[in-house]
Amino acid sequence: MASYHIDFEPVGLRGECPAGCSLMDAARQLGVHVVSVCGDRGICGRCKVQVLSGRLSEATAAEAEALSPQELEEGYRLACQAYPQSDCKVRVPRDTLSARQRTQVEGLEISVVPEPIVVPHRVQMAPASWSDLRADSERLVGALRDESQVPCSAVDIDVLRGASGRLRDWKWEVQASVRRGEVVALGPWPTMQLVLAVDLGTTKIASYLVNLDNGETMASKGIMNPQIAYGEDLIARLARAVESPSEAARLQGLVVDGLNAIAAELCAEIGAASEDIVEAVVVGNTAMHHLFLGLPVHQLAVSPFVAAVSEPLDLKARDVGLEIAPGGYVHLLANIGGFVGADHVAMLLGSDAWRGEGLVLALDIGTNTEVALVSDGEIACVSCASGPAFEGAHIRHGMRAAPGAIEAVQLVGGEVRYQTIDGVPAVGICGSGILDAMAALYLGGVIDSTGRMGEHTGVRESQGGREFLLVSQEEAGGGAAITVTQRDLRELQLAKGAMRTGIELLLQSRGCSHEDISQVIIAGAFGSYISVSSGIAVGMLPSLPLDRFQQVGNAAGTGARLALISATKREEARSIAARARYIELNNFATFQDTFAKSMYLRQSGDATPA
Amino acid sequence: MASYHIDFEPVGLRGECPAGCSLMDAARQLGVHVVSVCGDRGICGRCKVQVLSGRLSEATAAEAEALSPQELEEGYRLACQAYPQSDCKVRVPRDTLSARQRTQVEGLEISVVPEPIVVPHRVQMAPASWSDLRADSERLVGALRDESQVPCSAVDIDVLRGASGRLRDWKWEVQASVRRGEVVALGPWPTMQLVLAVDLGTTKIASYLVNLDNGETMASKGIMNPQIAYGEDLIARLARAVESPSEAARLQGLVVDGLNAIAAELCAEIGAASEDIVEAVVVGNTAMHHLFLGLPVHQLAVSPFVAAVSEPLDLKARDVGLEIAPGGYVHLLANIGGFVGADHVAMLLGSDAWRGEGLVLALDIGTNTEVALVSDGEIACVSCASGPAFEGAHIRHGMRAAPGAIEAVQLVGGEVRYQTIDGVPAVGICGSGILDAMAALYLGGVIDSTGRMGEHTGVRESQGGREFLLVSQEEAGGGAAITVTQRDLRELQLAKGAMRTGIELLLQSRGCSHEDISQVIIAGAFGSYISVSSGIAVGMLPSLPLDRFQQVGNAAGTGARLALISATKREEARSIAARARYIELNNFATFQDTFAKSMYLRQSGDATPA
Repeated sequence: MASYHIDFEPVGLRGECPAGCSLMDAARQLGVHVVSVCGDRGICGRCKVQVLSGRLSEATAAEAEALSPQELEEGYRLACQAYPQSDCKVRVPRDTLSARQRTQVEGLEISVVPEPIVVPHRVQMAPASWSDLRADSERLVGALRDESQVPCSAVDIDVLRGASGRLRDWKWEVQASVRRGEVVALGPWPTMQLVLAVDLGTTKIASYLVNLDNGETMASKGIMNPQIAYGEDLIARLARAVESPSEAARLQGLVVDGLNAIAAELCAEIGAASEDIVEAVVVGNTAMHHLFLGLPVHQLAVSPFVAAVSEPLDLKARDVGLEIAPGGYVHLLANIGGFVGADHVAMLLGSDAWRGEGLVLALDIGTNTEVALVSDGEIACVSCASGPAFEGAHIRHGMRAAPGAIEAVQLVGGEVRYQTIDGVPAVGICGSGILDAMAALYLGGVIDSTGRMGEHTGVRESQGGREFLLVSQEEAGGGAAITVTQRDLRELQLAKGAMRTGIELLLQSRGCSHEDISQVIIAGAFGSYISVSSGIAVGMLPSLPLDRFQQVGNAAGTGARLALISATKREEARSIAARARYIELNNFATFQDTFAKSMYLRQSGDATPA
Repeated sequence: MASYHIDFEPVGLRGECPAGCSLMDAARQLGVHVVSVCGDRGICGRCKVQVLSGRLSEATAAEAEALSPQELEEGYRLACQAYPQSDCKVRVPRDTLSARQRTQVEGLEISVVPEPIVVPHRVQMAPASWSDLRADSERLVGALRDESQVPCSAVDIDVLRGASGRLRDWKWEVQASVRRGEVVALGPWPTMQLVLAVDLGTTKIASYLVNLDNGETMASKGIMNPQIAYGEDLIARLARAVESPSEAARLQGLVVDGLNAIAAELCAEIGAASEDIVEAVVVGNTAMHHLFLGLPVHQLAVSPFVAAVSEPLDLKARDVGLEIAPGGYVHLLANIGGFVGADHVAMLLGSDAWRGEGLVLALDIGTNTEVALVSDGEIACVSCASGPAFEGAHIRHGMRAAPGAIEAVQLVGGEVRYQTIDGVPAVGICGSGILDAMAALYLGGVIDSTGRMGEHTGVRESQGGREFLLVSQEEAGGGAAITVTQRDLRELQLAKGAMRTGIELLLQSRGCSHEDISQVIIAGAFGSYISVSSGIAVGMLPSLPLDRFQQVGNAAGTGARLALISATKREEARSIAARARYIELNNFATFQDTFAKSMYLRQSGDATPA
């Protein structure tokens, strides 16, 4: 069989691929992580690449629709639609690379007009003299008021503590950062005003350093949540915090220290200092929110599971230990309830789901999956205990989305094809991989609609029951073979069943069916990488045309940034939280029944009943 | 010569006194400290005593004016007007005892209607349940708003940190202390709301624990300012703070620790806890204000000597380290300038000097003496560097107003008569004593109007120059003899000259003379104990009828309490500071000349020129 040499730039991966492969297949084989949202159907338009040299198949109708005439002119193609007919050299644009997103700090670049809550003003003052003996603070506030017409009535005490020396060092010309009538920071004029957005996840913390003047993200970073050492899941951490106040303080300290370290690193990257950060916005689920602020969590851990506070908070950063500008605030978006936190509000804001047209379903998939159904500005939310399977936990060979994790699986003619993160030898399987595997096994007839694994090529008996071999020991480079076990599939079934139950009951509560859904928004790290087709195949997601799905990445982080740079967006967040109605799944009479049905790989509501 | 046995109760001091002595003379001889403001002229009415048995001279016209018919009926007399004609038993009411005032926490009991800034509300809530999943904070704020019609939008973060457990412990019935829409404390219903007023003096700290509900002072206490170990005067302390930030932090820590200890003690006295204090008001001179808040002082120590901040401040108590209710505030009255601080504002408020009729002169005598001239609501202030002589420093046998200090001196027929604090043997002389001594020596012809000591009975030469013997070595109980030296008199002349200069220049700036002054208010510890007659005699005070003088005790402390319990009074304090104009003495062309004249013991403006 003929083969062609394909060269992917700028990633620098190249090799021989059999004729008849698409560029997407070639990319997969060579370990280039091209985004594929629609499952190679030419619909999502995300796998855009530029052909620099070589011949390829004619552009398809799908490509003509997804690409502009100019792009076609410049050699752009959709990787899933283009088939090489000679050796080729292909450029993969940054946005097309999915690996980039693994930093957990992806998200839509913000296009909102900055409308900052903290505004910088240049202030020039006459020096103190015998004929003008006003106090330093009065002089500053007076100049703001009289010369810049800035209504200002107070200077933060920590700003005051540093001000007298600085006013003189800077020869009475300064930049005053004014927040709702209060001076929260002073710098020499001009100083770039930075703000910090933080998405405080149970597992990961994503942070973005944003230039407040233009809304541009200057630097971003994702780290593991250091609280993980105290328990992988929230329940474990809440239990520890409830146990003793000192443990609660330790959990708080870990997060705060982590954030301070991130802030310092991000600032150092652009030659700034933490003190230049004039405001921070932090979003997280309710438990992370409470542990971060040092709020009591006992009432969050026992029935009826209520938050200590759900309103949005404006706190002095020093009151939570954050080291930013001396008078800077940290803003926390509102929680919706004990199980639906500020991160969900941020997601609804960041994805614009809250004002989508028609009936919008918004999912934030994780250990807890929050589902919102939005219709005419009304928002109903549920929280589903989907468990940690999506994050690779409780899965025999499960792992987090890290290099070497199998992130995508296909069965092609009974043969396993997979792709690992960073293209390195497989060491385990992450959430999107296990979902793909389940879909492939189901579609390939290896498991039935109850999730039971039959006798089949690749299936073998082991100590723990049946398992399907994904990667043999030899292929794993001498490591352990990687399999999907019957138990793994049950774990995943529970997870996807819980999520689907939430979706179904929300629809029931509104008297709607799947077909009424105009848009499904999937947010979160896991949600960004999964194959929607696989999700539909196993009945995790409703069976709808793929173009109704939108994978929006870390929309919570985007929402945090929006609330940071725009007063209007912050107000929108407040409004989202105020109108969101939390619905307790256990209160539904149909809960058990719906949950049982949702465990099947095909749903009653789908075209082909189980 | 006949003598009578006089018995003073309840102090229990008794003894023989020669016939022809007034009860006041008898009291002085026996070491009973009866207040004498007018110099035994029967005018001030402060030496009121009740005769329990014995015969006395007929009541004078002065007594008929000062006492009501009922009081006369009940045996009340003025001690300076009543002459025993037999053995007597006399009760000295608490208010007539001057010793009581030595606690530094005296002051007028407050008669203003409480109009507190922090208001307690009883709140009853429905417990959290599956059908009402509101967060604890929302539940509290909602109940305040809906059931008590209290506009409330926030709960302090430290209150939130403790609230969830308490709401449940207290079965959802609490007292919420609300300050301008913010919950700053929670307690079980009902809890007495306490507030703390502090007059932060350079030498002494006076503090008052007040019941906010009725304005009553529950307990009070005076301590030495612990910063004294770092320098007796302000300049020394400022120098230390400027020297190094760690020294500044140490000075701050000393005061804050001192206040926390006082607060805890005062609360313990009445069976409460520091946490029950929902607000504090602190007044002090500008340097004490800055050192307490950790504000920079370098600009306060060098020309042109400006404050870092002069506006009134509302700070979270935790931001200055004060341990009161979790969300409590400390309010600092405005400073007028670098040399005229919030304590002067409090004094003008506490004495009502700021709205006196006619031309009012208000003096706060200390190491720095602040003088205000009030006329038609206009307030002009100066600060005079009167030095530490009034506090007994830089005086050969000087001491603070403590037991054994000579506090009053007379020359009767060339013979020295003196009175010590607590009536114990003399060990030194305090401010009021040295002023009395100077007046007595001048009136007795021992010194001339330039202050020079002539040859005279009692004057002797010593190593340091001439000195006048007040107490011989034998009389001092084996201790050192107590004298007033020529150098002491010079020191005092400088002090009184500086003060008088301030008075004169203020009058000049308004084009007024002494006669125009309708009232002279003298505040402060020293000012409360001095003999006004002596002050006039040596030219420290303008020569005016004694009834124009009013000694008001610690009016700054009273002002602090007023600002604590009344929003109107707090607003008045702001208005006083805003309309007060600081005048720099050095800017006057006539400064040198006026100062030189003010050094004389008789002034050009007085009836008998020098």
